[in-house]
Amino acid sequence: MTRVVVVGAAGYIGGELLRLLIGHPEVEVVGAISSRFPGKRVDGVHPNLRSATDLLFCSADQVDECDVVFLALPHRVAMTQVEQWTRRAKLVVDLAGDFRLDDAEVFRRYYGEEHQAPHLLDDFVPGLPELHRENMRTAELISVPGCMAVAGVLALYPLVTRGLIDPERGAQFDARTGSSGSGATAGPANLHAERSGAMRVFAPTGHRHEAEISRHLGLPAAMTATGVEAVRGVQTVCHATLRPGVDTQAVRRAYREQYAAEPFVRVVAHQRGIFRYPDPKILLGSNYCDVGYALDEDTGRLTTIAALDNLVKGGAGNAVQCLNIRMGWPETLGLTFPGLHPL
Amino acid sequence: MTRVVVVGAAGYIGGELLRLLIGHPEVEVVGAISSRFPGKRVDGVHPNLRSATDLLFCSADQVDECDVVFLALPHRVAMTQVEQWTRRAKLVVDLAGDFRLDDAEVFRRYYGEEHQAPHLLDDFVPGLPELHRENMRTAELISVPGCMAVAGVLALYPLVTRGLIDPERGAQFDARTGSSGSGATAGPANLHAERSGAMRVFAPTGHRHEAEISRHLGLPAAMTATGVEAVRGVQTVCHATLRPGVDTQAVRRAYREQYAAEPFVRVVAHQRGIFRYPDPKILLGSNYCDVGYALDEDTGRLTTIAALDNLVKGGAGNAVQCLNIRMGWPETLGLTFPGLHPL
Amino acid sequence: MTRVVVVGAAGYIGGELLRLLIGHPEVEVVGAISSRFPGKRVDGVHPNLRSATDLLFCSADQVDECDVVFLALPHRVAMTQVEQWTRRAKLVVDLAGDFRLDDAEVFRRYYGEEHQAPHLLDDFVPGLPELHRENMRTAELISVPGCMAVAGVLALYPLVTRGLIDPERGAQFDARTGSSGSGATAGPANLHAERSGAMRVFAPTGHRHEAEISRHLGLPAAMTATGVEAVRGVQTVCHATLRPGVDTQAVRRAYREQYAAEPFVRVVAHQRGIFRYPDPKILLGSNYCDVGYALDEDTGRLTTIAALDNLVKGGAGNAVQCLNIRMGWPETLGLTFPGLHPL
Amino acid sequence: MTRVVVVGAAGYIGGELLRLLIGHPEVEVVGAISSRFPGKRVDGVHPNLRSATDLLFCSADQVDECDVVFLALPHRVAMTQVEQWTRRAKLVVDLAGDFRLDDAEVFRRYYGEEHQAPHLLDDFVPGLPELHRENMRTAELISVPGCMAVAGVLALYPLVTRGLIDPERGAQFDARTGSSGSGATAGPANLHAERSGAMRVFAPTGHRHEAEISRHLGLPAAMTATGVEAVRGVQTVCHATLRPGVDTQAVRRAYREQYAAEPFVRVVAHQRGIFRYPDPKILLGSNYCDVGYALDEDTGRLTTIAALDNLVKGGAGNAVQCLNIRMGWPETLGLTFPGLHPL
Repeated sequence: MTRVVVVGAAGYIGGELLRLLIGHPEVEVVGAISSRFPGKRVDGVHPNLRSATDLLFCSADQVDECDVVFLALPHRVAMTQVEQWTRRAKLVVDLAGDFRLDDAEVFRRYYGEEHQAPHLLDDFVPGLPELHRENMRTAELISVPGCMAVAGVLALYPLVTRGLIDPERGAQFDARTGSSGSGATAGPANLHAERSGAMRVFAPTGHRHEAEISRHLGLPAAMTATGVEAVRGVQTVCHATLRPGVDTQAVRRAYREQYAAEPFVRVVAHQRGIFRYPDPKILLGSNYCDVGYALDEDTGRLTTIAALDNLVKGGAGNAVQCLNIRMGWPETLGLTFPGLHPL
Repeated sequence: MTRVVVVGAAGYIGGELLRLLIGHPEVEVVGAISSRFPGKRVDGVHPNLRSATDLLFCSADQVDECDVVFLALPHRVAMTQVEQWTRRAKLVVDLAGDFRLDDAEVFRRYYGEEHQAPHLLDDFVPGLPELHRENMRTAELISVPGCMAVAGVLALYPLVTRGLIDPERGAQFDARTGSSGSGATAGPANLHAERSGAMRVFAPTGHRHEAEISRHLGLPAAMTATGVEAVRGVQTVCHATLRPGVDTQAVRRAYREQYAAEPFVRVVAHQRGIFRYPDPKILLGSNYCDVGYALDEDTGRLTTIAALDNLVKGGAGNAVQCLNIRMGWPETLGLTFPGLHPL
Repeated sequence: MTRVVVVGAAGYIGGELLRLLIGHPEVEVVGAISSRFPGKRVDGVHPNLRSATDLLFCSADQVDECDVVFLALPHRVAMTQVEQWTRRAKLVVDLAGDFRLDDAEVFRRYYGEEHQAPHLLDDFVPGLPELHRENMRTAELISVPGCMAVAGVLALYPLVTRGLIDPERGAQFDARTGSSGSGATAGPANLHAERSGAMRVFAPTGHRHEAEISRHLGLPAAMTATGVEAVRGVQTVCHATLRPGVDTQAVRRAYREQYAAEPFVRVVAHQRGIFRYPDPKILLGSNYCDVGYALDEDTGRLTTIAALDNLVKGGAGNAVQCLNIRMGWPETLGLTFPGLHPL
Repeated sequence: MTRVVVVGAAGYIGGELLRLLIGHPEVEVVGAISSRFPGKRVDGVHPNLRSATDLLFCSADQVDECDVVFLALPHRVAMTQVEQWTRRAKLVVDLAGDFRLDDAEVFRRYYGEEHQAPHLLDDFVPGLPELHRENMRTAELISVPGCMAVAGVLALYPLVTRGLIDPERGAQFDARTGSSGSGATAGPANLHAERSGAMRVFAPTGHRHEAEISRHLGLPAAMTATGVEAVRGVQTVCHATLRPGVDTQAVRRAYREQYAAEPFVRVVAHQRGIFRYPDPKILLGSNYCDVGYALDEDTGRLTTIAALDNLVKGGAGNAVQCLNIRMGWPETLGLTFPGLHPL
């Protein structure tokens, strides 16, 4: 069994990692590190794991050697701790924002501070299997992208990589997200009475995931981020402009070709039905990212849509998929939960 | 007292008209017409009106003369009935889509059929007080805009009318809406178990309100429409590009000047706070449309945001505001409910 | 104009008092006291009051003389401050739990500590117009009951006062409540991601409102309290046993007689319809308490149901109704908002 | 592989059966029968099964021989079809209400009509593993109980079977349920705008699951049923009276002993924590029924609480658990999904 440690195990991403890793047939969780709850039962914080585990949270120094470390730490903390973990494990998978950008200057602009470990930026392989699967097979450092970035990138990548989009016009992304994306720490903004039923534009410009989308797509992305009523779930709607002459058939073929062999990307663009475009409602708990599109041939205007569970394909599940690839295991191992309907 | 009739009184817009008109000090509701429930108590369908009214629904032929008629009929029905009402009342306010566009060809494209009364299209004054207040004072026919159109237009109008926007780049609107917008008729798509928690892109392109936005703003608008978890509430987020040289100060001034004297438009664009941008959550039941904006001076990219209650400022309340203007009453009469927080 | 002060004006009950009092034609709000936000704009905390008020929060010592004080303080704080306010105002209306019980021993049992002002317990008139309207007309001290207590008491009182219930069997109340009842202070338990969609039995036994119900009904009440998905709204379902021989007709008559003249209690017990029993969904923002009942004549088992908005009839609205009675104003003044449907 | 057929496969229980059976390692789904959608793709109705199955719905006469049939039909239909299935399969598991009661007279009272196959009532083994595991091992007919009945029975059974409850006082159950319990057929009552945020007492007395609880516990149960805001999830809160002298320790021991070896019942009654009592929020998709209790030793009043996912342990999951027992497979096979937190 591969011995894994989760750092930041009391958060929502940490909890989701534990759920997936405890159920993973090739893995043994040998440490669930929490600075807030050392010695407490894991299922006291993650009650869905009652009867699934008797683990206690521990502190970092209680962990022996291990094979893989998942860092589910707050942004800005990961970059100060990563090197203590590279010494102990042969693979470190980071789920914070700290190593998602490869340019320290862009980092400064989007994060508002200097990067503390810029020499490591190039060493991290982006944890996006659909774009970086091959690099990942030998990686020692993987940085899992932001939840909205995964959705935004996968929704437009097939067209960008085939040159079907007019890069001059850029791409405008509208991202909607549930409340779990802001983490497990209570504050006035995520008080239930304030957050419930909200349509809260918390980042009309300058959201950090915007920088990731621009990086991976290689075009100027403008993103707004809105909190809507949901706990889990991310959806991005993207406006872009097709190059002259690109028709529906070319778009359809691009998506089909790109994702035909992908285990966790489904093209959802139907003529009818309640769920004819990607909706996170049916993806919660699953590792799928559904992507779809619609276009107006007269004007060349394109709309693409993507949906995922921010804690799974937008975080912990994506990290486990990376692990599976890295270890040479079947890519879907431990990730087969299909989602619930209705929910 | 001015005698008013509501046609289509059993629907959601109809019910909201009744709530507002029953509470209006200058108005007497002399008819609540419903083809489905003639003879039934109004508060059996609109239970919030228990103890507020003993009205029964009636059929169209039971209504005597009256002063004002509000048509809250399904799209495509209004245009076949409007002329029977112009004979009976001196003011007809239509809340359907039938007379929102002034071009029969555009109507055909967006509604997928021929208009049945194209000769009347030019006679309707758009029920947008903020753009057409003066025309409204003598109007005999008023057509209240679609809920997402009101939000979209008000969010961008101050900049468009001052020439601060690059019209070449158009404007991309992302509209989110609650379930009441699809009306009171049950079907698989609005079953609670299916609609609850959804992020359903029901119109990635070609939504009818898009045509209204283009008409009123005079630029090419692209709109997507998504149903999110809410019963009431519409929010539009718009991406546009400023003309070179337009800075934050010019934008701020445009909004302030435009809406300083408007009783129902508030500019909401604060540096901090949970509700620093427009959110329908605090507007439910009220007639406000809140508008806000954010811009990235480096790139000239602008985001504007608007929020309203689709049944009030996006429908019934806006119609009553038009009535107040038309009759020379104080514009806020019967419309002073401020909204609830938290809700 | 009657000059009123709200103490604890930044909380949810405080905000609702401000909404109602600002809209009240006989009242001027001369102080909105908040120890957390002195000098800040009221509408920064209560965004629904934007454009309704320019008030700033102030501290207690900034308030001059006034006529009426509403104390919307945390439990246990009110009893230490009440006497400083009785000196300044001729009427003090307390909305905390501190003076809801008239027995210091019962207080100790339910609140887990000694009462700090037991000599005042008998001086407070219970703020339940339906039971204590006459006493209220000359009151100097009024204590508004707990939200679940108002619902529970009003649901069963008509039968208890007519001796139709078997007091030996007591009454079992099941109360459900939205999240606003736990106040505006953020903590892990009311984090959106934790509270959303919950059915959280937070008080299976021993909830404080249980003691109030027992007091007002004069029989042993057992109450459970469960947080359900809602921000506002309380519903109580009560199981009781009728005395032998009491039939449906006697029960119906009891409710009708008791509440025929009550402006804010409606009997809702219909044969059909979606809202045939009391549901807070249609009461939000309104001052109604709807009550209903159903019985099984074979077994004598009775179910009663009540619903209200916990911040209005369960708090601020009830307090304003008491004020109206005390001042000799029309009882419904400032309280006529009927609620919204759908919402 | 065991060949199973699901009849009524387009409903919500049918869909959940398909989800569980498609993921079950010992089972092959050889027929998904739907009278409404024959020939249509299963994943068109159950979009969470996209990429999990290519099955098409079929009609009853298209199904060959099979080993097991699950009937997920509307109430009253199952009893007219059961005998056509007993001829074709060696095990029939019924999930409707038709065979949940063993007394045709009680059936008539609760269902309002005559039973069409009363001679079969005694042949069905109740599909409650916790009470009838042994009978189930050789059963040919199993009737899975109602969702609220499973919760209510499991919550009180340990005390009833040990004689710790005063049967004279009966037990009062308050059941809350999500909207999926009323099925996938759209109607005014489950329209999203009407059902959202509701606290709808749809059965203050006489709910059918009440009869099941009385049957299995052998004491008079009174149950109310309320729809609350949720799609999935059932919670029952029960008031009962302990026999004199029964203390907390005896109650705790009863629950522990009863459920120590049960794979899908967890005793949840903690001193602190957000999820210290059973809450369906963390059980969605899982087959657990969590049960808890609290008591007031002074009065002997007991509150018990149970929670489950109505479509899983309250339906399809429970049926699969019965299948596992009947076939001699590990009882948890295909049922190990632990639930999500947060959700």
